[in-house]
Amino acid sequence: LQDPTAFHAVPDLNVVRLITKKRDGGALAPDEIAALVAAYTAGDVPDYQMSAFLMAAFLRGLSDAETVALTRAMLHSGEVLDLSDVPGVKVDKHSTGGVGDKVSLVLAPLVAACGVPVPMISGRGLGHTGGTLDKLEAIPGFDVRLDLDRYREVLSTVGAVLIGQTGEIAPADKELYGLRDVTGTVESIPLISASILSKKLAEGIDALVLDVKTGRGAFMKQEAQARQLAETLVRVARGFGTPTVALLTDMDAPLGRAIGNGPETAESIRILKGETPAGGPCDDVVDVTLALAGEMLWLGEAAESPEAGRRMATAALRDGWAAGVFQEIIEAQSGDASVLDDPDRLMGEPVATVTADASGFVADIDPLALGLAAVDLGAGRAKKEDDVDPKAGFVLHKKPGERVEAGETLAQIYASDPSRADADAVRSAFRLAARPATPRRLLIDRFDGEGWTGSPAST
Amino acid sequence: LQDPTAFHAVPDLNVVRLITKKRDGGALAPDEIAALVAAYTAGDVPDYQMSAFLMAAFLRGLSDAETVALTRAMLHSGEVLDLSDVPGVKVDKHSTGGVGDKVSLVLAPLVAACGVPVPMISGRGLGHTGGTLDKLEAIPGFDVRLDLDRYREVLSTVGAVLIGQTGEIAPADKELYGLRDVTGTVESIPLISASILSKKLAEGIDALVLDVKTGRGAFMKQEAQARQLAETLVRVARGFGTPTVALLTDMDAPLGRAIGNGPETAESIRILKGETPAGGPCDDVVDVTLALAGEMLWLGEAAESPEAGRRMATAALRDGWAAGVFQEIIEAQSGDASVLDDPDRLMGEPVATVTADASGFVADIDPLALGLAAVDLGAGRAKKEDDVDPKAGFVLHKKPGERVEAGETLAQIYASDPSRADADAVRSAFRLAARPATPRRLLIDRFDGEGWTGSPAST
Repeated sequence: LQDPTAFHAVPDLNVVRLITKKRDGGALAPDEIAALVAAYTAGDVPDYQMSAFLMAAFLRGLSDAETVALTRAMLHSGEVLDLSDVPGVKVDKHSTGGVGDKVSLVLAPLVAACGVPVPMISGRGLGHTGGTLDKLEAIPGFDVRLDLDRYREVLSTVGAVLIGQTGEIAPADKELYGLRDVTGTVESIPLISASILSKKLAEGIDALVLDVKTGRGAFMKQEAQARQLAETLVRVARGFGTPTVALLTDMDAPLGRAIGNGPETAESIRILKGETPAGGPCDDVVDVTLALAGEMLWLGEAAESPEAGRRMATAALRDGWAAGVFQEIIEAQSGDASVLDDPDRLMGEPVATVTADASGFVADIDPLALGLAAVDLGAGRAKKEDDVDPKAGFVLHKKPGERVEAGETLAQIYASDPSRADADAVRSAFRLAARPATPRRLLIDRFDGEGWTGSPAST
Repeated sequence: LQDPTAFHAVPDLNVVRLITKKRDGGALAPDEIAALVAAYTAGDVPDYQMSAFLMAAFLRGLSDAETVALTRAMLHSGEVLDLSDVPGVKVDKHSTGGVGDKVSLVLAPLVAACGVPVPMISGRGLGHTGGTLDKLEAIPGFDVRLDLDRYREVLSTVGAVLIGQTGEIAPADKELYGLRDVTGTVESIPLISASILSKKLAEGIDALVLDVKTGRGAFMKQEAQARQLAETLVRVARGFGTPTVALLTDMDAPLGRAIGNGPETAESIRILKGETPAGGPCDDVVDVTLALAGEMLWLGEAAESPEAGRRMATAALRDGWAAGVFQEIIEAQSGDASVLDDPDRLMGEPVATVTADASGFVADIDPLALGLAAVDLGAGRAKKEDDVDPKAGFVLHKKPGERVEAGETLAQIYASDPSRADADAVRSAFRLAARPATPRRLLIDRFDGEGWTGSPAST
């Protein structure tokens, strides 16, 4: 039996020593983390050493200083965009994801309409949560794969641009996420924070707003964990000198009424145009969007406070400016802007209707159950390689707290392949009760790096 | 951000689920551990998943039941010998290793001489600790690579056999140890226990005695850790129905006076023959050997108690029976038995002499410093692939507690290559003091599975 650390002294990097240091609860120096990530990305550190390190980091934790160093190393594994020649304070938003979360589609044009540039790089959906790229691609022709020159050009001319992750941005994150995914090391707050921020900070942004969701449909189901994630994200982002605020928002019910790519994009367009979406009004989507917009306009120096920013965004939405910017984005990214005139064609006709068995009030809609039913319908992906049906999804005609009569429509199902519609799966996500339940708080709290400052003002 | 466990459901074995279960402090079922090890050995589980599991096991621990299951899975990854046709209760000894630990060379023939068969499979030295195989190979012609038929035959006819690990025995241990060695997951008591016992239990033994060493020259430097290792080893071995006892012995000074393969084998032969070894008497080697022999003869049902076994072994050593069995072992394993008549030729003439700078008492000899100096001299290995010089080593002419005059010999250095001798390195391992220090306890304690029963009787 030997002490192996004595026999693996690589001249510049003793990986076993770094692993054992973290394993024993020690803190790694920034240079050590930088060297480890650089060597891993270069293929000089094998996956089996990195996965042992990741598990040690998962169980022993990483300090803020270590998380900053890890984020910096991942950030600098690829291209870091310099948008300093684009005028204005560039601000982006990141959401930890949920069911029915189409906020980016409304928010990006809305904030740009108020004069703050929004360079947004988004992801695809996986599992029960959707992804902004899939929603945008429900618009015929919409190209999310702009090269970085065109990305900069659209941002400069339109004020907002929405593209997908490129291979040039934080490639170490892609490799590390792939490894974490198969080694049980995903659900670590510092590792999640480094993954999110390495990509966001590479975009060339000046400030960041985070929508950290909690509840059954969120990644962080427990509020205490979601608060920890919000705090770590904000502290680490501020460690880079990037002003950052996090809102803690509810994901214990679907956001809005549409779930699925085409239905959600149609709903977003109706909201941008001030029209009522297919299933009915979507005050929750509007509230979250305006709260995030207020923060972005404040950080983007277009408003004196988040509240003033929110008022500015409310006016821009009401007056249709945001819809106009969304049309410009679609056109600049080769999409068919005629969908703005007829958004419901993005989902076609319903293939099945889900009705109430009894009368009462909607007490609860389980977002996780609907998210998983959407995957079964073809609206989402069980595996990364899966294709999605852009028309597939659900539109909820009843939301929690609303009255329903026996036989009345609870939801409608949309799909290119009607045989995949499962009305029972959708119905079983609804729970009816004799009395209306107390509505949940949607905007739970706000963290600005100094402390939790309470729920932002709602409409 | 997704929960990845939902998307890696392998039909028969969800490795990510097992990793996360251990990561979160859960206990794996025996079947789960068996399936994981079998799939890893078959190449169906990649190293990066196994190393994440090993780190989770390192930090969360394994219960005795899990350690038994892991040991069983590793044991059954290869051939499990059946020695039931060899008459007698077969007993082996395992030492966790130290500096100057040549006990096996004296113990195996001694116990066999008292009628208890000893089927012994040993390892090679690495780093500061030596290995029995290297010591045996200092004898010209000695063959440690017998096939399993010949192993059985020598055991039956001579009563003891000393060979090296074969590829047929516990191959999963070799793979897992190699992975642990490079992923910072070596120093885990359950993983160490499974590694040791999977090999020992595959030998076909009926009972086992463990020499768990503690101190600067040992793998477990802290006594509390060494006690934990002893307890886990004994409980897990007993979980297989194998009667097992552990002695906790001191490794804070070199054992005996010789360090290095040829010198240690020469010392062992002198002890077996009742002669004084080159540097002087070696009461510590004799004490540890007789204590272990007493336990083996008791477990081997040749003596009514460990104390009775010890008396029996004392007589067998005194009367030269053990030396006769060692001669038979050497001859059966193709070695040159004439070394018994002139053991000192195994080390040749000294190439340097280390003398005392001042007069006083030897207060301390650092075993780790001497072990590392032996590697530099060519007596040990820094890496597994290194060759060893069988003649190289040190002979201590003074031991802790002994009086020394300025200019008197502290130690002599032996080597095929005199240029590698470093007298200063050897001298600096000695600490002299004005008064003799209180001697350390050599036989510290004894664990029999029920509890710690106190130090075995010494001479």
